[in-house]
Amino acid sequence: MSVYLVGAGPGDPGLITVRGLSLLRECDVVLYDRLVAPELVQQAPLRAVRIPRGSLSQEQINELLIGHGRAGFRVVRLKGGDPFVFGRGGEEALALADAGVPFEVVPGVSSLSAVPAAVDIPVTHRGIAAAVTAVAAHEPDRLDYPALARAPGTLVFFMGLAGLDRLAAGLIAAGKAAATPAAVVSSGTLPDQELVVGDLTEIAALATALEPPSLLVVGEVVRIAGRLGAAALRRVAMAA
Amino acid sequence: MSVYLVGAGPGDPGLITVRGLSLLRECDVVLYDRLVAPELVQQAPLRAVRIPRGSLSQEQINELLIGHGRAGFRVVRLKGGDPFVFGRGGEEALALADAGVPFEVVPGVSSLSAVPAAVDIPVTHRGIAAAVTAVAAHEPDRLDYPALARAPGTLVFFMGLAGLDRLAAGLIAAGKAAATPAAVVSSGTLPDQELVVGDLTEIAALATALEPPSLLVVGEVVRIAGRLGAAALRRVAMAA
Repeated sequence: MSVYLVGAGPGDPGLITVRGLSLLRECDVVLYDRLVAPELVQQAPLRAVRIPRGSLSQEQINELLIGHGRAGFRVVRLKGGDPFVFGRGGEEALALADAGVPFEVVPGVSSLSAVPAAVDIPVTHRGIAAAVTAVAAHEPDRLDYPALARAPGTLVFFMGLAGLDRLAAGLIAAGKAAATPAAVVSSGTLPDQELVVGDLTEIAALATALEPPSLLVVGEVVRIAGRLGAAALRRVAMAA
Repeated sequence: MSVYLVGAGPGDPGLITVRGLSLLRECDVVLYDRLVAPELVQQAPLRAVRIPRGSLSQEQINELLIGHGRAGFRVVRLKGGDPFVFGRGGEEALALADAGVPFEVVPGVSSLSAVPAAVDIPVTHRGIAAAVTAVAAHEPDRLDYPALARAPGTLVFFMGLAGLDRLAAGLIAAGKAAATPAAVVSSGTLPDQELVVGDLTEIAALATALEPPSLLVVGEVVRIAGRLGAAALRRVAMAA
C-alpha cells in the first residue's frame, strides 16, 4: 500500500513529470485538485476510482488518503504545481506519517518559474536577479512588507489577485520603488492565459479583469520579456 | 528550425517533464550540462548529435545553439533543474532572440523544492513558512545578509557549499537566530544523495565531507523531516 503525492505541474498537461504520469497510469485511486488538467485525470486507468477534491476539507482529504492507502490501494494525490510549494503537501504527508501509511512525494514543476517563463520572464537572470522569493499572498494584510520590499531579486506572489491593490500599495509604502515593473499572469501555461504588465502603481488597475489562478511577478526581470517576445514560440496546453 | 531550452529536473531522470522527454526523443542535436543524467541523454535518437557542455563558455554555447538552429535542426538544450532558476536560460534565450532564432522554454522541476522534498523537507508549510527565498550563493561575500536574515519563511541557497562557513556566519551576524535549523543535501534525488542536519552554528562543520552539487535549506521547516522520515518511501534515480 502506498500513497503518492504527485505534482501535476502549472497547468499544461505536458508539464507533469514522467514519473508522475507513470504512477497515475497505474493507480487504483486518484484524488485531484480543481486546477489539475482533465487530460491528466483521464490518464488514470479506466477502473480507477476518481475523486475530485470539490468541497472536501483538508481533514477529509487526509482521511481519504489514509483510508484508501490502508485498504491496500495505490493512491495518487494529484496536486497543482509542486506539492511542497504552497500545496499543503506537507500536511498530507504528516497525516500519512502519523497514520503509518507509506507515502512518496513526487515533485512537480511549480508555477513559481514556469508561469513567468510562459510569458518570457526568467525569475532569475545574471546581473539582474540572483534571488527569487515566492510568497503566499491570499492574506495581503498579513504580509511583512518591509522585509519583502528589501528582499533581493524577484518577488513572486501566489494567490494575490483579490488583494492586488493592497499588495502593491504595501510594497510601495515599505520602500519598494513605485516604478518597479510588475506582471500579472492569469491561467499561466493554459490556452486562456492572459498577461498584463505595468509598474507597481498601475498593476492593480490593469489586472481588474483577470481571473484566478494568477501569479504576480515584481522585479526588473519583467523587462526581459519585451526583449524575448518576438522570437519566443507560443505554446500552451497540448495534450500530454 | 527551433531551439528548445529544456529543464531536465533535479537529477533523478524520472523527473523530466513529459514534454521535455518528447522533444528530446525527436531532436537532431542535444547540448547537455554536466549534471544531466546520462539516462536522459541516451533518450535522444541514435542519429542525434550529442554535445556535452564540457568546458564550453557561455558564449560558445550561445553560438552553437544559434548555428544549429539556423541550420534547420531541432536543437534541445538540456539543462539541470529549471532553465530560469539559476540556469542562465535567460541569457541563452536573449542570444537566440537577438539572432532571430525561434525558441521555446520548457520548464523543469527545480532543485528548489525537489531536493528538500527528497529528504522530507517541505519548503513551505502552513503555520511555519508562507514564503521561500532561493538564492545563488556561489559568491557568499556578496550576499545581502541583513535582507536575507529578515526574509520571511524558508531560505534555500544554491551553490553555497564552498563558502558555507561564511554564509552561516553572515546570516547569524545579520541577526538570524543561531539555533535556526539547517540542512545540506548533496546530490539530491540521486543514488549517492547525502544529508546533514544541524543548527546554523554547526552546519558548516557537519558538511565538510559533502561534495557539490548541494543545496542548503535554512528554516523551521527542516524540523518537519524528523516527523516524516519513518513513513516516507525512499526512492532515488530509477531510469526514466
